[in-house]
Amino acid sequence: MGKNRLEAFSDGVLAIIITIMVLEMKVPHGVHLGDLEPLLPVFSSYVLSFAYIAIYWNNHHHMLHTVHTVKWPILWANMHLLFWLSLVPVATGWMGENSFASVPTAVYGVVMLMAGVAYFMLQTAIIRTQGEDSLLRRAIGSDVKGKISPILYATAIATAPFFRWASLAIYVGVALMWIVPDQRIERVLGGSADGE
Amino acid sequence: MGKNRLEAFSDGVLAIIITIMVLEMKVPHGVHLGDLEPLLPVFSSYVLSFAYIAIYWNNHHHMLHTVHTVKWPILWANMHLLFWLSLVPVATGWMGENSFASVPTAVYGVVMLMAGVAYFMLQTAIIRTQGEDSLLRRAIGSDVKGKISPILYATAIATAPFFRWASLAIYVGVALMWIVPDQRIERVLGGSADGE
Amino acid sequence: MGKNRLEAFSDGVLAIIITIMVLEMKVPHGVHLGDLEPLLPVFSSYVLSFAYIAIYWNNHHHMLHTVHTVKWPILWANMHLLFWLSLVPVATGWMGENSFASVPTAVYGVVMLMAGVAYFMLQTAIIRTQGEDSLLRRAIGSDVKGKISPILYATAIATAPFFRWASLAIYVGVALMWIVPDQRIERVLGGSADGE
Amino acid sequence: MGKNRLEAFSDGVLAIIITIMVLEMKVPHGVHLGDLEPLLPVFSSYVLSFAYIAIYWNNHHHMLHTVHTVKWPILWANMHLLFWLSLVPVATGWMGENSFASVPTAVYGVVMLMAGVAYFMLQTAIIRTQGEDSLLRRAIGSDVKGKISPILYATAIATAPFFRWASLAIYVGVALMWIVPDQRIERVLGGSADGE
Repeated sequence: MGKNRLEAFSDGVLAIIITIMVLEMKVPHGVHLGDLEPLLPVFSSYVLSFAYIAIYWNNHHHMLHTVHTVKWPILWANMHLLFWLSLVPVATGWMGENSFASVPTAVYGVVMLMAGVAYFMLQTAIIRTQGEDSLLRRAIGSDVKGKISPILYATAIATAPFFRWASLAIYVGVALMWIVPDQRIERVLGGSADGE
Repeated sequence: MGKNRLEAFSDGVLAIIITIMVLEMKVPHGVHLGDLEPLLPVFSSYVLSFAYIAIYWNNHHHMLHTVHTVKWPILWANMHLLFWLSLVPVATGWMGENSFASVPTAVYGVVMLMAGVAYFMLQTAIIRTQGEDSLLRRAIGSDVKGKISPILYATAIATAPFFRWASLAIYVGVALMWIVPDQRIERVLGGSADGE
Repeated sequence: MGKNRLEAFSDGVLAIIITIMVLEMKVPHGVHLGDLEPLLPVFSSYVLSFAYIAIYWNNHHHMLHTVHTVKWPILWANMHLLFWLSLVPVATGWMGENSFASVPTAVYGVVMLMAGVAYFMLQTAIIRTQGEDSLLRRAIGSDVKGKISPILYATAIATAPFFRWASLAIYVGVALMWIVPDQRIERVLGGSADGE
Repeated sequence: MGKNRLEAFSDGVLAIIITIMVLEMKVPHGVHLGDLEPLLPVFSSYVLSFAYIAIYWNNHHHMLHTVHTVKWPILWANMHLLFWLSLVPVATGWMGENSFASVPTAVYGVVMLMAGVAYFMLQTAIIRTQGEDSLLRRAIGSDVKGKISPILYATAIATAPFFRWASLAIYVGVALMWIVPDQRIERVLGGSADGE
C-alpha cells in the first residue's frame, strides 16, 4: 500500500501542532511596547518548539522519501510519534508560561525524549519493512545522532532541578544537531526530479 | 471520479480531531510535579481517544485502499462518519474532566456506537459501489469485528450507570480488537509497491 | 498550472471550518443527562452547519473534478468562497447560542447568501477559463438550483425578524436541495476509474 | 526529492493560520444588530489579514509551480516563511482589538516586513537550487514588487506612531500590489493542462 495518506495525515497533524502553539500567545492587553514584555518567555518557548517541530518535519520528510510501501507497524509507529509530538504544545506552554522553572523544564525534556524514542522506533519499523536491502539503513549509517540524542535528553532531565539553564542549552544543542536533515538520504535518493 | 480529495479531506478532519483534544488539557497552574495530578483523568481520556481516532484512521486507510471510484453515497457516508468522530473530543472531555462519571461514560459509548455504525455504513456504501466483484467484501469476509463491536458498545452503555469501570474495560477491549487493521486487506491488495 | 494545491488548500480550510464549530460546544459542567439540555440549541446549529459545509465540500468536489487548469481568477474566486464559509462558525455560534433569535438568524442567512454568491462566482470563473467547450457548463445545464437558492436566502433574511422559524425552514430546505451533488457532473465525467 | 510534501505541509499551516483568526472574533453577547458594532475593528483586520494570507498562498502557489526538486535549504526557507506568517493572527488580533493603535500597527508592519523578507529568502533559495537555467529567475525578471515592498513596509512602521492611518493605507496598498500573482510565471509555465 502506498504512503501518500500516511504523509498527508502526518502533515496535517504537524501543521496543527506547529500552529496551535500560537494560541498560547494571548493578545497583549495594553497598547504599549512594554506590554509585549510578559509575552517574552512564551514567545521564546514558541520559537524553540516551532524549530523542534520543523526539525521533526524535515527529518520525517527525508526519512519517508525512502519508503515505498507501508504496512500496519509503520502506521502505528508513526501514530506513536505523532502522539508524543502532540504533547509538545502543552509541555512548551507549561515551561514558557512559568519562566522555564525546573519541573516544567524537566517534563519538556521527558516529552522530547519520548518523541526521540518514537522517531527511532519509526525508523526501525521502516528498516524492518524494507528488509535486507533497506535504503534507509544504508542512508543513516551508524546513526550517531539518533543514539546520542536520548542520552543528551536524559542528561537534561536530570540537571533540570539544579541547573535548568544547562537543560535549556542541551535542548538548543540537540536542535542544532538535527537542523540539517540527513544529507546521506539526499545522496542515496540521488538527484531525481520529483522522485519519490 | 477519483478518491484523492475524499482521502485528503478526511485526513484533514481526523488530524484536527486528534489534535483538538489537546486543547482540553490546560497548562497546569503551579510549577510542581503534583500540579500535574489534576490533569490525570483528562490525560488518560486523551490517550484513549487518541488511540481510537488512530484506530479509525488506520482502518479507514486500509478500507479506502480498496476503492478506485467514488460516487455521492460514499461521499455522504464518509461525512456521516466524520460527524460522529468530530463529537469524540467533547464526549472525551466530558468523561475525562468528570473522572469518568456514569452519564458521561455512557454518552461516550453512544458516540462510539454511532461512529461504529457510521463506519459500517461507509463500508456498505463502498461494497455496493464496487458491485458484485467487490474487493472490499472479499477482504472483510464475515466481518466478525464489525458485528461484535456495536453489541459490545451497547453493553457498555447499559452498564455505565452501575459499573462504569466495566464500561471503560469494554471501550479498551474494543479498541484492542481493532488495533491491527484488517490484514486481509493487506493480502488482497498484494505487495504492490506504492499501489493504490 | 494544476489544481492539486487548490484542492488541498480548500480541503484544509473546509476541514478546519467543519471542526472548529465543535469548539463552540463547551463541555457541560454537571454530570447528569439534564446538563446536556443547555447544549441543545448549539448542537442543532452545529448539525445544520456541519451539513452545510459538507454540502459545499461535496459540490466543490464535483465541480473541481471538471477542472484541469487553474489561472489566478479561479484562485481568487475560490479564496472568496472560503472567506464566506469561514464566517459560518461564528454566525452559527451566534444563532445557536441565542436560541435562534431573529437578528442572528438573519445574519446567518446573509453569510449563507454571500457563500452562495461566491460559489456561483467560482463556477463562472471556471466556465470562463474552460472557454467555449466548457465541461462544467455542459454539466450544470440551466442551473436551476444555483439561481433559486439566492432568492430563497433573501426571502429567509427578510422573514427572520417576523417568522424566524420560516427562515430556519428555508435554510433546511435549501440544504436538502443541494444534498445530492450534481449527478450530471458524474455522468459527464463518465465512469473513469480514478480519473481526474 | 519531490515537492509534494512541502506543498501539503504549507497548505496545512496556511489553512490553519487563515482560519484561526476567526477564533479571535468572539460570538457577540446580545441579539441586536448593534451588538455587532464592537466586532467591527476585529472584523476589518480579519478581512485584511485573510487577504494577506490569501495573497501569500496564491504567490507561493505560483512560485512553487516552477520547482521540481527540493533540498534542505528550501525546506528551511519555507519553514522560516511559515513561522512569520504564523504570527499574523496574534499581530492582527492585537491591532484589531485595540482599534489600530500606533504600537500594534507598527508591530503588524514588522511581522509583515519579516514575512516579506522570508518570502524573498525562499525565492532566492529556489533560484539557487535551480542553478543557471532557473525557471523562477526568468519568470520574476527584475522583481520590482519584491524590492519595493520591504521599503514600503519600513515606511509604514516608521509612520505608525504619528500617522497610523498612513500605515494602514500602505498595508492595503502593498496588498493590492500582490493581488495578481506573477503573470510571468503563468506564461513561463505555459498552458500545460495539469502540468507541474
